[in-house]
Amino acid sequence: MRVSELSRHSGVPVATIKYYLREGLLPKGEATSATQAVYSETHLRRLRLIRALVEGSGVPLAKVRAILDAIDDTGVDLHHLLGTVQYALTPETTPTDDPEWQDAQQRTEGLLARLDWWVGPFSPARHQLTRAIATVLGLGYEVGPHTLDVYATAARTMADHDVTRIDPAAPREEAVEYVAVITALMDQMVLALHRLAQEDASARRFHDPDAEC
Amino acid sequence: MRVSELSRHSGVPVATIKYYLREGLLPKGEATSATQAVYSETHLRRLRLIRALVEGSGVPLAKVRAILDAIDDTGVDLHHLLGTVQYALTPETTPTDDPEWQDAQQRTEGLLARLDWWVGPFSPARHQLTRAIATVLGLGYEVGPHTLDVYATAARTMADHDVTRIDPAAPREEAVEYVAVITALMDQMVLALHRLAQEDASARRFHDPDAEC
Repeated sequence: MRVSELSRHSGVPVATIKYYLREGLLPKGEATSATQAVYSETHLRRLRLIRALVEGSGVPLAKVRAILDAIDDTGVDLHHLLGTVQYALTPETTPTDDPEWQDAQQRTEGLLARLDWWVGPFSPARHQLTRAIATVLGLGYEVGPHTLDVYATAARTMADHDVTRIDPAAPREEAVEYVAVITALMDQMVLALHRLAQEDASARRFHDPDAEC
Repeated sequence: MRVSELSRHSGVPVATIKYYLREGLLPKGEATSATQAVYSETHLRRLRLIRALVEGSGVPLAKVRAILDAIDDTGVDLHHLLGTVQYALTPETTPTDDPEWQDAQQRTEGLLARLDWWVGPFSPARHQLTRAIATVLGLGYEVGPHTLDVYATAARTMADHDVTRIDPAAPREEAVEYVAVITALMDQMVLALHRLAQEDASARRFHDPDAEC
Protein backbone atom coordinates (compact mmCIF):
# COMPACT_ATOMS: atom_id res chain seq x y z
CA MET A 1 0.00 0.00 0.00
CA ARG A 2 1.00 3.65 -0.50
CA VAL A 3 1.76 5.96 2.42
CA SER A 4 -1.71 7.53 2.02
CA GLU A 5 -3.36 4.11 2.48
CA LEU A 6 -1.08 3.33 5.41
CA SER A 7 -2.30 6.60 6.93
CA ARG A 8 -5.96 5.75 6.31
CA HIS A 9 -5.72 2.22 7.72
CA SER A 10 -3.72 3.24 10.79
CA GLY A 11 -5.39 6.59 11.52
CA VAL A 12 -1.93 8.20 11.73
CA PRO A 13 -1.47 11.40 9.62
CA VAL A 14 0.97 11.16 6.65
CA ALA A 15 3.24 13.85 8.15
CA THR A 16 3.52 11.82 11.37
CA ILE A 17 4.29 8.62 9.41
CA LYS A 18 7.07 10.46 7.56
CA TYR A 19 8.44 11.67 10.86
CA TYR A 20 8.50 8.09 12.23
CA LEU A 21 10.26 6.95 9.02
CA ARG A 22 12.93 9.67 9.36
CA GLU A 23 13.42 8.77 13.04
CA GLY A 24 13.81 5.11 12.14
CA LEU A 25 10.85 4.01 14.34
CA LEU A 26 9.15 2.63 11.23
CA PRO A 27 11.27 0.66 8.71
CA LYS A 28 11.48 2.11 5.20
CA GLY A 29 9.00 0.80 2.60
CA GLU A 30 10.01 -0.94 -0.61
CA ALA A 31 11.02 1.78 -3.10
CA THR A 32 9.02 1.77 -6.35
CA SER A 33 10.57 5.00 -7.72
CA ALA A 34 12.91 7.75 -6.51
CA THR A 35 10.10 9.37 -4.54
CA GLN A 36 7.59 6.57 -3.83
CA ALA A 37 7.53 3.41 -1.75
CA VAL A 38 5.01 0.72 -0.85
CA TYR A 39 4.27 -0.55 2.64
CA SER A 40 3.12 -3.92 3.93
CA GLU A 41 0.98 -5.33 6.72
CA THR A 42 4.16 -5.41 8.83
CA HIS A 43 4.40 -1.62 8.58
CA LEU A 44 0.73 -1.27 9.47
CA ARG A 45 1.06 -3.47 12.56
CA ARG A 46 4.16 -1.59 13.69
CA LEU A 47 2.47 1.76 13.12
CA ARG A 48 -0.58 0.70 15.14
CA LEU A 49 1.70 -0.33 17.99
CA ILE A 50 3.57 3.01 17.93
CA ARG A 51 0.22 4.78 17.99
CA ALA A 52 -1.04 2.68 20.92
CA LEU A 53 2.17 3.40 22.85
CA VAL A 54 2.36 7.13 22.10
CA GLU A 55 -1.30 8.14 22.04
CA GLY A 56 -2.85 5.46 24.24
CA SER A 57 -0.22 5.20 26.94
CA GLY A 58 1.79 8.44 26.62
CA VAL A 59 5.13 6.65 26.22
CA PRO A 60 7.88 9.10 25.09
CA LEU A 61 9.46 8.38 21.68
CA ALA A 62 12.85 7.41 23.17
CA LYS A 63 11.15 4.65 25.15
CA VAL A 64 9.05 3.61 22.14
CA ARG A 65 12.33 3.11 20.28
CA ALA A 66 13.71 0.93 23.10
CA ILE A 67 10.53 -1.19 23.00
CA LEU A 68 10.68 -1.61 19.20
CA ASP A 69 14.38 -2.54 19.39
CA ALA A 70 13.57 -5.18 22.02
CA ILE A 71 10.81 -6.60 19.77
CA ASP A 72 13.24 -6.91 16.84
CA ASP A 73 16.12 -8.32 18.87
CA THR A 74 15.32 -12.01 19.20
CA GLY A 75 18.18 -12.30 21.71
CA VAL A 76 15.86 -10.53 24.18
CA ASP A 77 13.51 -13.10 25.73
CA LEU A 78 9.80 -12.42 26.25
CA HIS A 79 10.27 -11.69 29.94
CA HIS A 80 12.80 -8.93 29.27
CA LEU A 81 10.73 -7.59 26.40
CA LEU A 82 7.66 -7.26 28.64
CA GLY A 83 9.87 -5.73 31.34
CA THR A 84 11.01 -3.06 28.87
CA VAL A 85 7.37 -2.21 28.21
CA GLN A 86 6.33 -2.23 31.85
CA TYR A 87 9.26 -0.05 32.96
CA ALA A 88 8.43 2.44 30.17
CA LEU A 89 4.83 2.65 31.42
CA THR A 90 5.68 3.15 35.10
CA PRO A 91 6.33 6.76 36.20
CA GLU A 92 9.81 7.44 37.59
CA THR A 93 9.94 8.13 41.33
CA THR A 94 12.93 10.05 42.68
CA PRO A 95 14.24 8.96 46.10
CA THR A 96 14.36 11.65 48.79
CA ASP A 97 16.73 11.91 51.73
CA ASP A 98 14.16 12.10 54.52
CA PRO A 99 14.27 9.43 57.26
CA GLU A 100 10.90 7.97 56.12
CA TRP A 101 12.38 7.10 52.73
CA GLN A 102 15.14 4.99 54.30
CA ASP A 103 12.67 3.27 56.57
CA ALA A 104 10.18 2.67 53.73
CA GLN A 105 12.90 1.38 51.43
CA GLN A 106 13.87 -1.25 54.01
CA ARG A 107 10.23 -2.31 54.17
CA THR A 108 10.02 -2.60 50.37
CA GLU A 109 13.24 -4.59 50.15
CA GLY A 110 12.25 -6.71 53.15
CA LEU A 111 8.95 -7.59 51.52
CA LEU A 112 10.54 -8.57 48.19
CA ALA A 113 13.14 -10.72 49.98
CA ARG A 114 10.52 -12.33 52.24
CA LEU A 115 8.36 -13.26 49.25
CA ASP A 116 11.37 -14.19 47.11
CA TRP A 117 10.04 -12.17 44.19
CA TRP A 118 12.26 -11.91 41.12
CA VAL A 119 12.36 -8.18 40.51
CA GLY A 120 15.16 -6.36 38.69
CA PRO A 121 17.17 -3.83 40.71
CA PHE A 122 16.04 -0.99 38.41
CA SER A 123 12.30 -1.70 38.44
CA PRO A 124 10.62 1.73 38.87
CA ALA A 125 7.87 0.01 40.88
CA ARG A 126 10.34 -0.46 43.77
CA HIS A 127 10.59 3.30 44.26
CA GLN A 128 6.88 3.73 43.55
CA LEU A 129 6.07 1.42 46.46
CA THR A 130 8.71 3.02 48.69
CA ARG A 131 7.30 6.51 48.00
CA ALA A 132 3.76 5.42 48.98
CA ILE A 133 4.97 3.73 52.18
CA ALA A 134 7.18 6.72 53.08
CA THR A 135 4.27 9.13 52.66
CA VAL A 136 1.99 7.03 54.89
CA LEU A 137 4.74 6.81 57.54
CA GLY A 138 5.33 10.57 57.28
CA LEU A 139 1.64 11.14 58.06
CA GLY A 140 2.02 9.15 61.27
CA TYR A 141 0.31 5.93 60.19
CA GLU A 142 1.90 2.48 60.30
CA VAL A 143 2.53 0.17 57.31
CA GLY A 144 3.55 -3.11 58.88
CA PRO A 145 4.71 -6.36 57.27
CA HIS A 146 1.25 -7.90 57.69
CA THR A 147 -0.45 -5.13 55.68
CA LEU A 148 2.20 -5.37 52.96
CA ASP A 149 1.90 -9.16 52.86
CA VAL A 150 -1.90 -9.01 52.49
CA TYR A 151 -1.66 -6.52 49.62
CA ALA A 152 1.23 -8.38 47.99
CA THR A 153 -0.63 -11.69 48.10
CA ALA A 154 -3.61 -10.06 46.40
CA ALA A 155 -1.33 -8.47 43.80
CA ARG A 156 0.32 -11.84 43.17
CA THR A 157 -3.07 -13.47 42.45
CA MET A 158 -3.85 -10.79 39.85
CA ALA A 159 -0.38 -10.95 38.31
CA ASP A 160 -0.46 -14.74 37.95
CA HIS A 161 -3.70 -14.34 36.04
CA ASP A 162 -2.26 -11.49 33.92
CA VAL A 163 0.63 -13.56 32.59
CA THR A 164 -1.61 -16.50 31.68
CA ARG A 165 -3.32 -14.11 29.25
CA ILE A 166 -0.08 -13.64 27.31
CA ASP A 167 0.56 -16.27 24.65
CA PRO A 168 4.32 -16.86 24.29
CA ALA A 169 3.71 -18.40 20.84
CA ALA A 170 2.01 -15.26 19.43
CA PRO A 171 3.97 -12.56 17.58
CA ARG A 172 6.00 -10.50 20.05
CA GLU A 173 4.29 -7.30 18.86
CA GLU A 174 0.94 -8.67 20.00
CA ALA A 175 2.16 -9.34 23.53
CA VAL A 176 3.71 -5.86 23.68
CA GLU A 177 0.55 -4.20 22.41
CA TYR A 178 -1.54 -6.16 24.90
CA VAL A 179 0.64 -5.15 27.86
CA ALA A 180 0.93 -1.54 26.72
CA VAL A 181 -2.76 -1.10 26.01
CA ILE A 182 -4.10 -3.03 28.97
CA THR A 183 -1.86 -1.91 31.84
CA ALA A 184 -3.50 1.46 32.55
CA LEU A 185 -6.98 -0.03 32.17
CA MET A 186 -6.19 -2.92 34.51
CA ASP A 187 -5.04 -0.30 37.02
CA GLN A 188 -8.44 1.39 36.74
CA MET A 189 -10.24 -1.94 37.16
CA VAL A 190 -8.24 -2.85 40.26
CA LEU A 191 -8.87 0.54 41.86
CA ALA A 192 -12.60 0.40 41.13
CA LEU A 193 -12.92 -3.17 42.43
CA HIS A 194 -10.96 -2.24 45.56
CA ARG A 195 -13.45 0.59 46.23
CA LEU A 196 -16.44 -1.68 45.64
CA ALA A 197 -14.99 -4.37 47.91
CA GLN A 198 -14.29 -1.77 50.61
CA GLU A 199 -17.90 -0.65 50.53
CA ASP A 200 -19.11 -4.23 50.88
CA ALA A 201 -16.64 -4.99 53.68
CA SER A 202 -17.64 -1.80 55.51
CA ALA A 203 -21.35 -2.61 55.14
CA ARG A 204 -20.86 -6.06 56.63
CA ARG A 205 -18.78 -4.74 59.51
CA PHE A 206 -20.05 -1.26 60.36
CA HIS A 207 -23.63 -0.97 59.11
CA ASP A 208 -26.04 -0.38 61.94
CA PRO A 209 -29.54 -1.53 60.89
CA ASP A 210 -31.05 0.78 63.52
CA ALA A 211 -29.33 3.91 62.21
CA GLU A 212 -31.40 6.52 60.37
CA CYS A 213 -29.56 5.87 57.12
CA MET B 1 -6.11 29.43 71.85
CA ARG B 2 -6.35 32.53 69.65
CA VAL B 3 -6.88 32.30 65.89
CA SER B 4 -3.16 33.05 65.36
CA GLU B 5 -2.22 30.03 67.49
CA LEU B 6 -4.81 27.89 65.73
CA SER B 7 -3.12 28.92 62.48
CA ARG B 8 0.35 28.10 63.78
CA HIS B 9 -0.64 24.67 65.16
CA SER B 10 -2.62 23.65 62.07
CA GLY B 11 -0.44 25.20 59.36
CA VAL B 12 -3.55 26.84 57.87
CA PRO B 13 -3.27 30.64 57.19
CA VAL B 14 -5.47 32.93 59.33
CA ALA B 15 -7.32 34.22 56.24
CA THR B 16 -8.22 30.64 55.25
CA ILE B 17 -9.41 29.87 58.81
CA LYS B 18 -11.64 32.95 58.71
CA TYR B 19 -13.01 31.80 55.36
CA TYR B 20 -13.83 28.35 56.82
CA LEU B 21 -15.53 30.07 59.81
CA ARG B 22 -17.66 32.26 57.49
CA GLU B 23 -18.58 29.20 55.41
CA GLY B 24 -19.58 27.29 58.54
CA LEU B 25 -17.06 24.48 57.92
CA LEU B 26 -15.40 25.31 61.24
CA PRO B 27 -17.65 26.03 64.26
CA LYS B 28 -17.30 29.48 65.81
CA GLY B 29 -14.93 29.88 68.78
CA GLU B 30 -16.01 31.05 72.20
CA ALA B 31 -16.31 34.85 72.07
CA THR B 32 -14.12 36.71 74.59
CA SER B 33 -14.96 40.18 73.27
CA ALA B 34 -16.83 41.74 70.36
CA THR B 35 -13.92 41.02 68.00
CA GLN B 36 -12.04 38.10 69.59
CA ALA B 37 -12.71 34.42 70.24
CA VAL B 38 -10.79 31.43 71.61
CA TYR B 39 -10.56 28.02 70.01
CA SER B 40 -10.16 24.53 71.46
CA GLU B 41 -8.54 21.23 70.54
CA THR B 42 -11.82 20.32 68.82
CA HIS B 43 -11.33 23.23 66.41
CA LEU B 44 -7.74 22.20 65.80
CA ARG B 45 -8.72 18.59 65.03
CA ARG B 46 -11.50 19.72 62.70
CA LEU B 47 -9.15 22.15 60.95
CA ARG B 48 -6.53 19.45 60.43
CA LEU B 49 -9.17 17.19 58.89
CA ILE B 50 -10.38 19.94 56.53
CA ARG B 51 -6.78 20.54 55.50
CA ALA B 52 -6.16 16.81 54.89
CA LEU B 53 -9.31 16.59 52.76
CA VAL B 54 -8.74 19.78 50.75
CA GLU B 55 -4.96 19.85 50.37
CA GLY B 56 -4.12 16.18 50.72
CA SER B 57 -6.95 14.64 48.74
CA GLY B 58 -8.30 17.53 46.61
CA VAL B 59 -11.86 17.15 47.89
CA PRO B 60 -14.02 20.18 46.85
CA LEU B 61 -15.43 22.28 49.69
CA ALA B 62 -19.05 21.22 49.04
CA LYS B 63 -18.05 17.59 49.59
CA VAL B 64 -15.96 18.52 52.65
CA ARG B 65 -19.11 20.06 54.09
CA ALA B 66 -21.08 16.84 53.44
CA ILE B 67 -18.37 14.81 55.19
CA LEU B 68 -18.31 17.15 58.22
CA ASP B 69 -22.11 17.05 58.44
CA ALA B 70 -22.00 13.24 58.40
CA ILE B 71 -19.41 13.25 61.20
CA ASP B 72 -21.62 15.49 63.36
CA ASP B 73 -24.87 13.66 62.64
CA THR B 74 -24.79 10.67 64.97
CA GLY B 75 -27.85 9.28 63.15
CA VAL B 76 -25.42 8.42 60.31
CA ASP B 77 -23.73 5.10 61.10
CA LEU B 78 -20.01 4.52 60.55
CA HIS B 79 -20.62 2.61 57.32
CA HIS B 80 -22.51 5.51 55.73
CA LEU B 81 -20.00 8.02 57.08
CA LEU B 82 -17.12 6.15 55.44
CA GLY B 83 -19.17 5.80 52.26
CA THR B 84 -19.62 9.59 52.16
CA VAL B 85 -15.83 9.95 52.33
CA GLN B 86 -15.11 7.27 49.76
CA TYR B 87 -17.65 8.60 47.26
CA ALA B 88 -16.17 12.10 47.66
CA LEU B 89 -12.69 10.73 46.88
CA THR B 90 -13.70 8.73 43.79
CA PRO B 91 -13.75 10.67 40.49
CA GLU B 92 -17.13 10.85 38.75
CA THR B 93 -17.41 8.80 35.55
CA THR B 94 -20.06 9.81 33.02
CA PRO B 95 -21.83 6.95 31.19
CA THR B 96 -21.62 7.05 27.38
CA ASP B 97 -24.13 5.69 24.88
CA ASP B 98 -21.77 3.42 22.90
CA PRO B 99 -22.59 -0.30 22.75
CA GLU B 100 -19.49 -1.18 24.80
CA TRP B 101 -20.84 0.80 27.75
CA GLN B 102 -24.06 -1.25 27.84
CA ASP B 103 -22.12 -4.48 27.54
CA ALA B 104 -19.59 -3.44 30.20
CA GLN B 105 -22.33 -2.28 32.56
CA GLN B 106 -23.96 -5.71 32.39
CA ARG B 107 -20.61 -7.26 33.28
CA THR B 108 -20.19 -4.92 36.26
CA GLU B 109 -23.70 -5.57 37.54
CA GLY B 110 -23.35 -9.30 36.87
CA LEU B 111 -20.16 -9.43 38.91
CA LEU B 112 -21.64 -7.55 41.87
CA ALA B 113 -24.73 -9.81 41.85
CA ARG B 114 -22.63 -12.98 41.49
CA LEU B 115 -20.46 -12.00 44.46
CA ASP B 116 -23.43 -10.64 46.44
CA TRP B 117 -21.53 -7.48 47.29
CA TRP B 118 -23.43 -4.80 49.19
CA VAL B 119 -22.75 -1.71 47.08
CA GLY B 120 -25.03 1.34 46.95
CA PRO B 121 -26.69 2.14 43.60
CA PHE B 122 -24.87 5.48 43.43
CA SER B 123 -21.35 4.27 44.16
CA PRO B 124 -19.09 6.09 41.65
CA ALA B 125 -16.86 3.00 41.56
CA ARG B 126 -19.59 1.16 39.58
CA HIS B 127 -19.16 3.54 36.66
CA GLN B 128 -15.41 3.63 37.15
CA LEU B 129 -15.26 -0.14 36.67
CA THR B 130 -17.70 -0.04 33.76
CA ARG B 131 -15.62 2.64 31.99
CA ALA B 132 -12.43 0.54 32.27
CA ILE B 133 -14.17 -2.62 31.01
CA ALA B 134 -15.85 -0.70 28.14
CA THR B 135 -12.51 0.74 27.02
CA VAL B 136 -10.84 -2.68 27.01
CA LEU B 137 -13.76 -4.14 25.03
CA GLY B 138 -13.61 -1.20 22.60
CA LEU B 139 -9.96 -2.01 21.92
CA GLY B 140 -10.94 -5.53 20.92
CA TYR B 141 -9.81 -7.40 24.03
CA GLU B 142 -12.02 -9.62 26.17
CA VAL B 143 -12.83 -9.10 29.88
CA GLY B 144 -14.57 -12.29 30.90
CA PRO B 145 -16.20 -13.27 34.20
CA HIS B 146 -13.13 -15.29 35.21
CA THR B 147 -10.80 -12.29 34.90
CA LEU B 148 -13.22 -10.10 36.84
CA ASP B 149 -13.64 -12.77 39.52
CA VAL B 150 -9.86 -13.13 39.98
CA TYR B 151 -9.42 -9.36 40.35
CA ALA B 152 -12.48 -9.03 42.58
CA THR B 153 -11.29 -11.80 44.90
CA ALA B 154 -7.92 -10.06 45.25
CA ALA B 155 -9.67 -6.71 45.89
CA ARG B 156 -11.87 -8.37 48.52
CA THR B 157 -8.80 -9.66 50.41
CA MET B 158 -7.34 -6.16 50.52
CA ALA B 159 -10.65 -4.56 51.51
CA ASP B 160 -11.26 -7.01 54.36
CA HIS B 161 -7.87 -6.03 55.72
CA ASP B 162 -8.58 -2.31 55.20
CA VAL B 163 -11.71 -2.32 57.37
CA THR B 164 -9.99 -4.20 60.22
CA ARG B 165 -7.68 -1.17 60.47
CA ILE B 166 -10.63 1.09 61.31
CA ASP B 167 -11.54 1.17 65.00
CA PRO B 168 -15.31 1.70 65.40
CA ALA B 169 -14.75 2.84 69.00
CA ALA B 170 -12.38 5.69 68.00
CA PRO B 171 -13.66 9.26 67.38
CA ARG B 172 -15.45 9.43 64.01
CA GLU B 173 -13.09 12.16 62.84
CA GLU B 174 -10.14 9.79 63.19
CA ALA B 175 -11.74 7.13 60.98
CA VAL B 176 -12.61 9.78 58.38
CA GLU B 177 -9.11 11.22 58.41
CA TYR B 178 -7.62 7.75 58.09
CA VAL B 179 -9.79 6.86 55.09
CA ALA B 180 -9.31 10.26 53.43
CA VAL B 181 -5.56 10.36 53.92
CA ILE B 182 -4.82 6.72 53.19
CA THR B 183 -7.02 5.96 50.17
CA ALA B 184 -4.84 7.55 47.48
CA LEU B 185 -1.66 6.11 49.04
CA MET B 186 -3.16 2.62 49.26
CA ASP B 187 -3.99 2.97 45.56
CA GLN B 188 -0.32 3.72 44.85
CA MET B 189 0.79 0.73 46.94
CA VAL B 190 -1.57 -1.64 45.18
CA LEU B 191 -0.46 -0.45 41.72
CA ALA B 192 3.23 -0.74 42.63
CA LEU B 193 2.78 -4.22 44.14
CA HIS B 194 0.80 -5.32 41.08
CA ARG B 195 3.72 -4.23 38.86
CA LEU B 196 6.27 -6.01 41.05
CA ALA B 197 4.19 -9.18 41.13
CA GLN B 198 3.79 -9.05 37.33
CA GLU B 199 7.54 -8.87 36.89
CA ASP B 200 8.02 -11.86 39.17
CA ALA B 201 5.25 -13.86 37.47
CA SER B 202 6.68 -13.04 34.04
CA ALA B 203 10.18 -14.05 35.14
CA ARG B 204 8.94 -17.41 36.37
CA ARG B 205 6.95 -18.04 33.22
CA PHE B 206 8.78 -16.43 30.32
CA HIS B 207 12.43 -16.04 31.31
CA ASP B 208 14.72 -18.00 29.03
CA PRO B 209 17.99 -18.77 30.86
CA ASP B 210 19.71 -19.19 27.49
CA ALA B 211 18.71 -15.75 26.17
CA GLU B 212 21.37 -13.04 25.92
CA CYS B 213 19.66 -10.93 28.57
